[in-house]
Amino acid sequence: MTSNTETSGLQAAFEEAKAGYEEGGIPIGSVILTADGEILGRGHNLRIQKSSPTLHAEIAALEQAGRQKAEIYRNATLYTTLSPCSMCTGAILLYKIPRVVIGENSNFRGDEDLLRARGVQVTVLDDEECKQLMRRFIQEKPEEWNEDIGET
Amino acid sequence: MTSNTETSGLQAAFEEAKAGYEEGGIPIGSVILTADGEILGRGHNLRIQKSSPTLHAEIAALEQAGRQKAEIYRNATLYTTLSPCSMCTGAILLYKIPRVVIGENSNFRGDEDLLRARGVQVTVLDDEECKQLMRRFIQEKPEEWNEDIGET
Repeated sequence: MTSNTETSGLQAAFEEAKAGYEEGGIPIGSVILTADGEILGRGHNLRIQKSSPTLHAEIAALEQAGRQKAEIYRNATLYTTLSPCSMCTGAILLYKIPRVVIGENSNFRGDEDLLRARGVQVTVLDDEECKQLMRRFIQEKPEEWNEDIGET
Repeated sequence: MTSNTETSGLQAAFEEAKAGYEEGGIPIGSVILTADGEILGRGHNLRIQKSSPTLHAEIAALEQAGRQKAEIYRNATLYTTLSPCSMCTGAILLYKIPRVVIGENSNFRGDEDLLRARGVQVTVLDDEECKQLMRRFIQEKPEEWNEDIGET
């Protein structure tokens, strides 16, 4: 994987995050790329828009991809603007997605260590745009954010 | 928690599993009970019915419950007819649901050890009806089952 692919994968995830923010939602985005760099699925957190406790960005991207064969997942890379929570970590493990690229983990750090312990290649890009958008949302709507991570 | 509550919680989950089977779906059901024993959410696996890779029974039950406050989850019990996969395990951990009652883990054993390691109280009832229904489905539609656990 080239650095260009990583950058464009994260850019697409960030576009999802921005779309979520513009809808009034929690600005976390995710895309899943195939081995060929094609977008298999993309999505953003829909807690507020769909009153959904499970449509985190990564789950929304998996949903949008639809039913896929194991070999597709096993050659894919998942991009997400924010470190994946336990549920999304578990979804990555269920489908044995081997590579995860994370925009940032300073606003929230999920279960990255479990991903690594199970053999997933995890890259954290420490992206400034991802950090700023997430920080802005947390300041604006702290209750919604805490609800999303099971804290309030 | 009394044994009667455990039995009736599992019975409700099994009804969901049977409903899924009758729809032509993967027969796994789940219910979430509040501290008072009220049903907060219920659902069954919808992979086949909704072409969904993420609506496992536990996720469907969380979705049906809708947005809830942390304290509700932290006093709830999740019942599922089959040992929860990594994704559903992660969802339980995200919302800090403290108790999980599992119908059986002989047809599939998920990430129970991770639940226990993170302090979740896990009870496996080794229920004969749950085992038989799941075994029947796996024999009838092995490909759909293997797809559901990321194996084909």
